[in-house]
Amino acid sequence: MEEIKIIELKQSVFEDNDKDAERLRAGLKDAGVFLMNLMSSPGSGKTTLLLSLAEKLAGRLDWAVMEADIDSDVDAARMIDAGVRSVQLHTGGMCHLDADMTRQGLAELGLIQGEADRPVAGCEKLDLVVLENVGNLVCPAEFDTGACLDVTILSVPEGDDKPLKYPLMYEKCDILIVSKIDVLPYFDFDTEKVVANALMRNPKIDVIFVSAKTGEGMDELAVKIEKRVREWQE
Amino acid sequence: MEEIKIIELKQSVFEDNDKDAERLRAGLKDAGVFLMNLMSSPGSGKTTLLLSLAEKLAGRLDWAVMEADIDSDVDAARMIDAGVRSVQLHTGGMCHLDADMTRQGLAELGLIQGEADRPVAGCEKLDLVVLENVGNLVCPAEFDTGACLDVTILSVPEGDDKPLKYPLMYEKCDILIVSKIDVLPYFDFDTEKVVANALMRNPKIDVIFVSAKTGEGMDELAVKIEKRVREWQE
Repeated sequence: MEEIKIIELKQSVFEDNDKDAERLRAGLKDAGVFLMNLMSSPGSGKTTLLLSLAEKLAGRLDWAVMEADIDSDVDAARMIDAGVRSVQLHTGGMCHLDADMTRQGLAELGLIQGEADRPVAGCEKLDLVVLENVGNLVCPAEFDTGACLDVTILSVPEGDDKPLKYPLMYEKCDILIVSKIDVLPYFDFDTEKVVANALMRNPKIDVIFVSAKTGEGMDELAVKIEKRVREWQE
Repeated sequence: MEEIKIIELKQSVFEDNDKDAERLRAGLKDAGVFLMNLMSSPGSGKTTLLLSLAEKLAGRLDWAVMEADIDSDVDAARMIDAGVRSVQLHTGGMCHLDADMTRQGLAELGLIQGEADRPVAGCEKLDLVVLENVGNLVCPAEFDTGACLDVTILSVPEGDDKPLKYPLMYEKCDILIVSKIDVLPYFDFDTEKVVANALMRNPKIDVIFVSAKTGEGMDELAVKIEKRVREWQE
């Protein structure tokens, strides 16, 4: 009985959030800001990947990061140390970001204002904002943040079977970044199998293999992201 | 506004679940079954650890595993292949197990019956049931499953900062298993720092370092679990 009750409540929350996310996406279009939602398990290396990406995007895109966590500010501190504009969002115990929480972060960056998500006149122009979602493969997949692009990271140590176990995350993602490929020799991870598993969930998913540590694949990833931003800005 | 609404709904769900978990725990005591709730991020190696543990527990404890996942039956299949009694629980998209979902698994194993959680007369006696929870560091920490022991795994590739970011998981856990220590040379992971971070969240947490691959620490872990089961059975 309790289980059914939870699902009903969640459904109404989902519907409200979906509408709110559409409003936010329209506001972002007006402001000319591309929002990328980056999701993964805890510890898959989202922040380390963004630090590596920062070097590649320098001089090509103006961008900022919103670091969402339940607690701590270690991620935002790492980004700021690397010269990337960054704000830390605390979710108040929540396991995901919804559109309104994302809106609060964007307002904090001075990009949009008010309930109508109007662009802030005269604000610093940003091409791209990356939302680093809470480390979780389940709940973030259920809540549309208003992002223009959903990206998930799967690190090699997690195993190639994750698309079998967390279907929604892979169904809704546009890009799958397979990360930490420098440690492939030490883990039983089949690169062909992970692609097949991901495509089974989403035939349109774009899979890329990278190592933020060695830099392998990072140029290609930066090009891919810039292309998506420019297409959206046209 | 929506955020506040969600939290209120969750609180009433938590209270109902807490009472239900206490009922289930009392039923398990009558049935003489020790329930261990095993939590972690996706891909931290819960199933691999249980396979290694199976060798160590053989002949010492009669036990079974309940594998909870949103989808797939790969984990239960791996356990059964290794000769461990196992059932696969599908959560219907839910990101965690609550007491009632746990009860359904225990009923499936033929250990308890009815809403009063009565022991099943003449059923095969089990000392230990391990509930392998959904891979998630957030939501499973919020829901009491009725377990007698809460254990979390943190694998080396995830990083030593996880207790900073997922406070509740570490606050509520009795044992922290730091796993995949065979790959310590390839990751920037500080074993002293992880212990300090975990103790900051929970001064009573019992930390153990293991590798299911090399077997290091697995004997000690098996002894630790058997000790907890026997103390509880007395």
